[in-house]
Amino acid sequence: MVHAVLRRLAPQVTVIDLNHEVPAFDVAAGAGSLTRALPHLGPGVVLAVVDPGVGTNRRAVAVEAGEGEDARWFVGPDNGLMVPAIELCGGPRQVVELDRPASKLDASPATFDGRDLFAPAVAALCGGEDGTLGRPVPPGDLVRLEQPSIELVNLSDGRVRLRSVVTWVDRFGNAQLSAEPTLLPDLRRVGAVSVGHHTGQEEPPTATVVRLVRVFAELGPGESGVLVDANGRLALVVREGSAARHFGVGEGTAVELIW
Amino acid sequence: MVHAVLRRLAPQVTVIDLNHEVPAFDVAAGAGSLTRALPHLGPGVVLAVVDPGVGTNRRAVAVEAGEGEDARWFVGPDNGLMVPAIELCGGPRQVVELDRPASKLDASPATFDGRDLFAPAVAALCGGEDGTLGRPVPPGDLVRLEQPSIELVNLSDGRVRLRSVVTWVDRFGNAQLSAEPTLLPDLRRVGAVSVGHHTGQEEPPTATVVRLVRVFAELGPGESGVLVDANGRLALVVREGSAARHFGVGEGTAVELIW
Amino acid sequence: MVHAVLRRLAPQVTVIDLNHEVPAFDVAAGAGSLTRALPHLGPGVVLAVVDPGVGTNRRAVAVEAGEGEDARWFVGPDNGLMVPAIELCGGPRQVVELDRPASKLDASPATFDGRDLFAPAVAALCGGEDGTLGRPVPPGDLVRLEQPSIELVNLSDGRVRLRSVVTWVDRFGNAQLSAEPTLLPDLRRVGAVSVGHHTGQEEPPTATVVRLVRVFAELGPGESGVLVDANGRLALVVREGSAARHFGVGEGTAVELIW
Repeated sequence: MVHAVLRRLAPQVTVIDLNHEVPAFDVAAGAGSLTRALPHLGPGVVLAVVDPGVGTNRRAVAVEAGEGEDARWFVGPDNGLMVPAIELCGGPRQVVELDRPASKLDASPATFDGRDLFAPAVAALCGGEDGTLGRPVPPGDLVRLEQPSIELVNLSDGRVRLRSVVTWVDRFGNAQLSAEPTLLPDLRRVGAVSVGHHTGQEEPPTATVVRLVRVFAELGPGESGVLVDANGRLALVVREGSAARHFGVGEGTAVELIW
Repeated sequence: MVHAVLRRLAPQVTVIDLNHEVPAFDVAAGAGSLTRALPHLGPGVVLAVVDPGVGTNRRAVAVEAGEGEDARWFVGPDNGLMVPAIELCGGPRQVVELDRPASKLDASPATFDGRDLFAPAVAALCGGEDGTLGRPVPPGDLVRLEQPSIELVNLSDGRVRLRSVVTWVDRFGNAQLSAEPTLLPDLRRVGAVSVGHHTGQEEPPTATVVRLVRVFAELGPGESGVLVDANGRLALVVREGSAARHFGVGEGTAVELIW
Repeated sequence: MVHAVLRRLAPQVTVIDLNHEVPAFDVAAGAGSLTRALPHLGPGVVLAVVDPGVGTNRRAVAVEAGEGEDARWFVGPDNGLMVPAIELCGGPRQVVELDRPASKLDASPATFDGRDLFAPAVAALCGGEDGTLGRPVPPGDLVRLEQPSIELVNLSDGRVRLRSVVTWVDRFGNAQLSAEPTLLPDLRRVGAVSVGHHTGQEEPPTATVVRLVRVFAELGPGESGVLVDANGRLALVVREGSAARHFGVGEGTAVELIW
């Protein structure tokens, strides 16, 4: 429907679908998907909708981020979904709260904002319009997501424990962690890590020792491991298999690595 | 495949995917999806395929609906799928039974009409061709779907019972009903309705009393309710949850509202 | 992501999605899907990725196939995925091993070749570049998939047994077989076949006798049968139902037909 509205209002514009597989209402998963995509996009307006607050008084916004060649507009709900990508793009330079247009369905107060509000705003921005979309909002007022926690602790036996959470499971079952490899200068020196669910004990009783590898090919078929994935993030993986199933984890699961 | 054929035969045409998630063989669900989309489409030919009768002698048709600016061609099987959208568009003005082209796969009498019959007809219509696609059929001969039944009864205790069916469950689990809010002038005055499966008794024993609200935001997290949805239809909903799972309903389930 | 990269590097190019539903790591299923699509494509470069070997030393290749009007480039992994389509297109005329570009994510040796390697190569080919993409490889060195086995045996009781495997289950549950109807001149003369799993015995104990029909319409609702499908291949089918569920088969299941 959003494609149809964009085609009607801005026929010259090419639309690219980045992701339609974000779990329902999972704003953090949507934010992660958008952040991964951003470095690979050409010029254009970004429309993002993961929106459990549709129909509430959460703001609908257009945000201009970055400067010069990297400047880009983002359109969507003010619920934190777009902020990580906006930061990656240089931070918010101006924020506009979108005016709500007269509904085409006067009988109904319910809304399909992607179709009725965001797509028309994107079409207007593609046509050169900008600050006239609504009233300005201070960039500092944008809603931000809580950051997934990361905890690095020196254990009494001399080992190090990294506690983080699974932020994304891709379609193959690879489980990306909130911990970035740059936070872990020691990790490259160790050959194996112990992977387990966080249970509040010093070492999870169900922990598995897996190898830290550079590429899938270093693992045997069906072998599990930890590597730095194609988005530059730490991930639990299984060669030609699902790490999510193997380790019993999903988005949001707390995971511990000990080395 | 249909995209590829359209690109080959009508390279100047932009193709928009409206819906690929209609359950297999569910003609009524496809008709509902098309009807919801129609008010938001710009000019263009509509190709629709939900087609349990492919390979039988059901007709393949092109239908011109409406007049002047609202005129539009529809191409697909003559099984009722397109008729509700055609009516919304002003009704059928001319109907053509498509000539079946010589198959590219002479060894096989089986057919993939979307690829081999409908897409070429759409390409021809986009190129300006029309009545030459086949022989004319009287518009009154188009196959129509049975309308989902709606029953409004005054109960002996002074209450009113509305019996309708679930016509659509969206990806969030919201369950749209066949009853339209315009049929229910009283509904706006009542604050709560009893929702239950139709069991043949006066009031379903498993009925739940839920609030009638205007927007999701009036419900608490996980609370169920009834509202007028973004397509202007009555729907069972759960805030940030699945009404289909909560009420145990799916497409075709008979549902009663009592107030 | 691949769409976004193609749009950035080759904005004039239209991209058509042929199939995103190949099961993970199933190279043979991907090869089948591409082979079915090929006869219906207009001019253009084919990008194909089903790639369990990503990150190993398997080659990444661009292959020019066919001559004159039918000439076409294919870009993807050298794991057999593209070879059946390349053969259908006239066979490989030149093969180039793609140079691996400097990664945009220097911290990470892991790869997303569709985004980082194949899409840029496709963009270059669409822009008229060719042999300069890397070093030439002898066409005979391309990796080929093992052919699914087909076995035709005269039984002692005068009947004929055809043993083949299920190569594709479509979204309706129709199960396409590796056996082509042209291999079976006798099949048209028989009215019914016995269908069963291969168990090593002369006739599978669980075999069902089904009718051999030309079109779905010859079957009663819910009846199973065997027909030549829209791709010109033998298939197990159930009218308005799933043959995969009915016969308990999936891709790779050995199936016997006896007549």
